[in-house]
Amino acid sequence: MENTSIIYGRNSIIEALKSGRRNFNRIMISRSLRPDAKIDLIKEYAANSGIPFVFAEKEQFTKYNEYNHQGVIAFVSPIDYVELENFMANHKENASIVLLDGVEDPHNIGAIIRTCVCAGIDAIMLPSRRGTLVNEIVEKTSAGAINHISVIKVNSPVSALQKLKENNWWVIASDHHSDNNHYDIDFLNMNFVLVMGAEHAGISKSIINLADFRIKIPMLTEFNSLNVSVATGIIIYEYVRQKLTGRRRI
Amino acid sequence: MENTSIIYGRNSIIEALKSGRRNFNRIMISRSLRPDAKIDLIKEYAANSGIPFVFAEKEQFTKYNEYNHQGVIAFVSPIDYVELENFMANHKENASIVLLDGVEDPHNIGAIIRTCVCAGIDAIMLPSRRGTLVNEIVEKTSAGAINHISVIKVNSPVSALQKLKENNWWVIASDHHSDNNHYDIDFLNMNFVLVMGAEHAGISKSIINLADFRIKIPMLTEFNSLNVSVATGIIIYEYVRQKLTGRRRI
Repeated sequence: MENTSIIYGRNSIIEALKSGRRNFNRIMISRSLRPDAKIDLIKEYAANSGIPFVFAEKEQFTKYNEYNHQGVIAFVSPIDYVELENFMANHKENASIVLLDGVEDPHNIGAIIRTCVCAGIDAIMLPSRRGTLVNEIVEKTSAGAINHISVIKVNSPVSALQKLKENNWWVIASDHHSDNNHYDIDFLNMNFVLVMGAEHAGISKSIINLADFRIKIPMLTEFNSLNVSVATGIIIYEYVRQKLTGRRRI
Repeated sequence: MENTSIIYGRNSIIEALKSGRRNFNRIMISRSLRPDAKIDLIKEYAANSGIPFVFAEKEQFTKYNEYNHQGVIAFVSPIDYVELENFMANHKENASIVLLDGVEDPHNIGAIIRTCVCAGIDAIMLPSRRGTLVNEIVEKTSAGAINHISVIKVNSPVSALQKLKENNWWVIASDHHSDNNHYDIDFLNMNFVLVMGAEHAGISKSIINLADFRIKIPMLTEFNSLNVSVATGIIIYEYVRQKLTGRRRI
């Protein structure tokens, strides 16, 4: 394959196999690795799908030692990014997107993708020029969640949001200057894009200006410093609460 | 000092200085570091408190290179853990504790401490034998939040919870086998301990058995895999929502 990604971590590899959405070139496994239930599962999936299984010496793993691979690496096709136009043409009613504006730490991006999948968010949107795209660390920290959600890559988040707004989507920006708390708005009965910014810089001004709603997470002390993946989880799960209880804000 | 901790990261050092709760031995700063506003602030605090400021060559930082220190390290007294008995004797009405049962990743512990401080939680409780105590990485990832909350260290979380229960505290355990969602319980008008478990193993059986309430975070897909610091944030902020709106579950 010309363009190959690597996936490491037993769970990430199992999720990628289960999803059926990735093209596996081969799986490389260390000869010195003791088999366990997860390795057996990987072998079984690989055998059923005709994916080559290569036993390798320790030395062949040396160049991947920056990753905590624990003796198993899968070489796969990169994830297929979804075009915004395709997503807009095919989404369900009351759909939801999380847009990360300038979030750089791949561990945070991975954790946010896990949360989005747990919460039934329909897509994650990543700008190609601001922040980090899907890489090995995002794959790993997403624990395979990356295979269960549409990932939309956009060149300009501003024009993507404008396009969405013209098509009956509402833009919700997380902004600590807002007067509204995150539970003050009604997430139901609409398509929404939730925009989360970088931990320090926040969301860019041009996006704040496009927002239909601005919300903040209230702070009970002077110390204003939530991790961005925690903040995203808090807001998304307020949406889940409203959705499951059928209760808007009262 | 016999027992010295190190703090790295400009924000963590500033928060520790501001808190006035740490005993600084000295601050070591790289000669090749360009001053910036945060370094100036550190210098100012240090000068006002009579803390020695040591300019050091690059080589003196070599042994700290496992940390992302960026040229500034503070040598300080370790944090003062609070005794459970002292905490119980002095807490305010409707107080709250978060107990981490077996959480090992210091990045998660740091992020959870940040969330606890933002949400006005009164104390964090860490078992001395299961999981990780406060170390350099917890200090750093807490972004200084560690200096703004009581940290209770206990040998046995089970006997600590028993003692709390005898003293009018309620135990809430996060347990994905529960029938109750996290927003189904009423966090108000009581002292509570929220117990969060390790990402994979969950909470130990003996603690589940002690719990007055068991709650789960609902999953909207089959993919059940929230990061523990995200999960803690979601539950704690449901408490904040109830507290700020005065609204219990309806």
